[in-house]
Amino acid sequence: MKREAAFGAEPQGTAPRRRVVVDLGARSYDILIGPGLIDAAGAEIVARLPGIRAAIVTDETVGRLYLTRLSVALRAAGIEHVEIVLPAGEKTKSFEQLAHVVDAILAARLERGDAVIALGGGVIGDLAGFASAIVRRGMRFVQVPTTLLAQVDSSVGGKTGINSPRGKNLVGAFHQPSLVLADTALLDTLSPREFAAGYAEMVKYGLIDRPAFFDMLEADLGGVFGGGAARGEAIRVSCEAKAAVVAADEEEHGSRALLNLGHTFGHALEAAVGYDAARLVHGEGVAIGMVLAHRFSAELGFCPPEDADRVAAHLAAAGLPVRIGAIPDAPLTVEELMRGIAQDKKVEKGRLTFILTRGIGRAFVANDVDPAAVEAFLARELDR
Amino acid sequence: MKREAAFGAEPQGTAPRRRVVVDLGARSYDILIGPGLIDAAGAEIVARLPGIRAAIVTDETVGRLYLTRLSVALRAAGIEHVEIVLPAGEKTKSFEQLAHVVDAILAARLERGDAVIALGGGVIGDLAGFASAIVRRGMRFVQVPTTLLAQVDSSVGGKTGINSPRGKNLVGAFHQPSLVLADTALLDTLSPREFAAGYAEMVKYGLIDRPAFFDMLEADLGGVFGGGAARGEAIRVSCEAKAAVVAADEEEHGSRALLNLGHTFGHALEAAVGYDAARLVHGEGVAIGMVLAHRFSAELGFCPPEDADRVAAHLAAAGLPVRIGAIPDAPLTVEELMRGIAQDKKVEKGRLTFILTRGIGRAFVANDVDPAAVEAFLARELDR
Ligand SMILES: NC(=O)c1ccc[n+]([C@@H]2O[C@H](COP(=O)([O-])OP(=O)(O)OC[C@H]3O[C@@H](n4cnc5c(N)ncnc54)[C@H](O)[C@@H]3O)[C@@H](O)[C@H]2O)c1
Ligand SMILES: NC(=O)c1ccc[n+]([C@@H]2O[C@H](COP(=O)([O-])OP(=O)(O)OC[C@H]3O[C@@H](n4cnc5c(N)ncnc54)[C@H](O)[C@@H]3O)[C@@H](O)[C@H]2O)c1
Ligand SMILES: [Zn+2]
Ligand SMILES: [Zn+2]
Repeated sequence: MKREAAFGAEPQGTAPRRRVVVDLGARSYDILIGPGLIDAAGAEIVARLPGIRAAIVTDETVGRLYLTRLSVALRAAGIEHVEIVLPAGEKTKSFEQLAHVVDAILAARLERGDAVIALGGGVIGDLAGFASAIVRRGMRFVQVPTTLLAQVDSSVGGKTGINSPRGKNLVGAFHQPSLVLADTALLDTLSPREFAAGYAEMVKYGLIDRPAFFDMLEADLGGVFGGGAARGEAIRVSCEAKAAVVAADEEEHGSRALLNLGHTFGHALEAAVGYDAARLVHGEGVAIGMVLAHRFSAELGFCPPEDADRVAAHLAAAGLPVRIGAIPDAPLTVEELMRGIAQDKKVEKGRLTFILTRGIGRAFVANDVDPAAVEAFLARELDR
Repeated sequence: MKREAAFGAEPQGTAPRRRVVVDLGARSYDILIGPGLIDAAGAEIVARLPGIRAAIVTDETVGRLYLTRLSVALRAAGIEHVEIVLPAGEKTKSFEQLAHVVDAILAARLERGDAVIALGGGVIGDLAGFASAIVRRGMRFVQVPTTLLAQVDSSVGGKTGINSPRGKNLVGAFHQPSLVLADTALLDTLSPREFAAGYAEMVKYGLIDRPAFFDMLEADLGGVFGGGAARGEAIRVSCEAKAAVVAADEEEHGSRALLNLGHTFGHALEAAVGYDAARLVHGEGVAIGMVLAHRFSAELGFCPPEDADRVAAHLAAAGLPVRIGAIPDAPLTVEELMRGIAQDKKVEKGRLTFILTRGIGRAFVANDVDPAAVEAFLARELDR
């Protein structure tokens, strides 16, 4: 994992750009970060994939806002392309939409050397990436992530896929992109709630093993939400953090598990509300989950209680929920949450695997957590 | 590509077994070949994948003949499993059946470390292999090929996939199995026509770069069709030949193209009859295609005409068609065939890529074949 600071002399203007290289040997690729990058997409793609044709996949919301700009940028660089516009939302990550996208790519007669370009959030990135992985057994893939979550998390690491009626993300492939273009200015049209949800994942990288990054976020929360240099830098550090974990464990056999900090509790909360985004979006579940992971670690004697309080205070300042009781409507029960935790695939011989922590920036994988201890802890948290 | 000759001291009896190792580094795997192997499937799988659960995928025809035997063998080795039975035939390689198989695997709560076992011909192997590639982003996969084509071709090399309404095998993944068990006795129930079709692919390996193997087939055609040691040995050499090509070029960027000997003409013939298996099955198209490749190479001055005649004589002796005119019903036209050739994705800047040959066992990739020469050649062949 190498990186370079902002680099100058850009043809498109003076806005600073940042670059993170995801180091995967022959399949290494660049993540470019900065405002206005969408208008340079054609040039950046052609520089890396000369002579290609492409299919842009996007959703109706993002398409309305940004498809014309991307299309113009591609045309200016001579990249012939078709446009595939899908409904917005998690339901789009289905077998039916996958078959539709695959068919549209084939209808355009794209070949293995051509590219699928995902313009959108994690839903579009996961679906379009999966389609690019399986058409002709693997085409080129370019990500233009448009949500904060996609810029700092889903577009990095090569996980692609769809949901099954039996569970989220159960079908997919590892397929690395050739390039990621994170235009930080596109986030200005994101709803504050979606922005905050992505922010939770950003905070996660600080909490896993980058305490100085957490300090930086604490010091300049407003700057990151406001846009500008602080946002770009925070996205760069986040991509770097995720890329480092991915480079060490591309297909999730070990250390990549640390990225699940806050996610076992978070997924249980999402399942308990029936994945009702009106009540809880993923990043909100992760925010509460990270606070719970710290508090639980404190109870077990691993983590200073002050650190747990600091995490909760910062996430609350970002507008994120930090208590189970903050989830609106019908209160949740310990039984529901324990069921969700057991289904999170991290149970082995009656013991649970959890990401715990010794303090901010000191997360670790614990393989033999006692379910009874979790249950007692959750019972107390529900009364909080 | 390492190999070992028949190895002795088998728990299940005295029938000779052969082994080919497909050398792909950490993902290397064994192909075991011999009569009665299906009854040893449980033991062989457990030895390599201890503690797994499994899903057997098969088709109705093969299931009726062999599913109970495989199931008994797995149970004897303590492998818990479910059975997924699909309609027989090429139409089964569809998005709909893929979604169905994926759902059945998930319904059985199989995990990444568990296995999908394909019991059947190339259709089942391709579909089940693809499902195993994408459920949870990659499960284990075991092949129990039951057609000659599957034993010598489709089960070796890791290509998996389905068809699209826009063309055959357009959607899929490279996903290597953990083990291939080729029970040569299962071929006794195969129709003579299906056996001969697989035999064409076997001959192909001799024609590409193993002239001694072609000699051996010529000398003992009856032995291979009759079963017994000659059949096992011929299957072993074929697997070794394909494994060598695959190890050199796993994802088909170069030399793997030699495996397409006879296939550009063959695919054009299949397309021209509308993939009507009553008129032409794949291996028959390949047989005619290989003869055409030799005759065309002879016309171009690359190949001795006697070699082309020898190839035609041997394939005819195996009961395979060797002239375009042997395809029943409405005669084909040059225009239809040229259209099929152009669609075979091997056209670049007006020139065609073909596998040509300097004689038996001396095939090579020719990148700039003149379409007009092909057209003139086909016109003469249609009059033959
Ligand atoms: N592949 C991975 O490693 C990975 C990691 C984390 C999450 N994910 C997946 O990501 C998905 C969630 O991603 P998401 O949160 O980006 O959801 P999303 O793609 O559904 O985007 C959220 C909403 O924001 C809208 N939107 C997107 N960009 C916008 C913009 N710039 N301005 C205005 N509106 C915009 C979208 O239309 C959508 O309605 C989930 O399916 C999750 O499983 C994948
Ligand atoms: N993955 C690869 O590298 C590769 C290579 C070549 C071909 N293929 C694919 O393989 C498929 C063709 O394979 P196939 O020819 O094995 O077809 P198939 O799987 O349809 O089998 C042919 C027929 O024989 C029956 N059958 C199978 N085993 C039998 C047995 N032991 N006894 C009696 N009947 C039996 C089947 O039910 C079927 O009706 C095509 O879809 C082709 O694209 C893949
Ligand atoms: Zn997350
Ligand atoms: Zn073939």
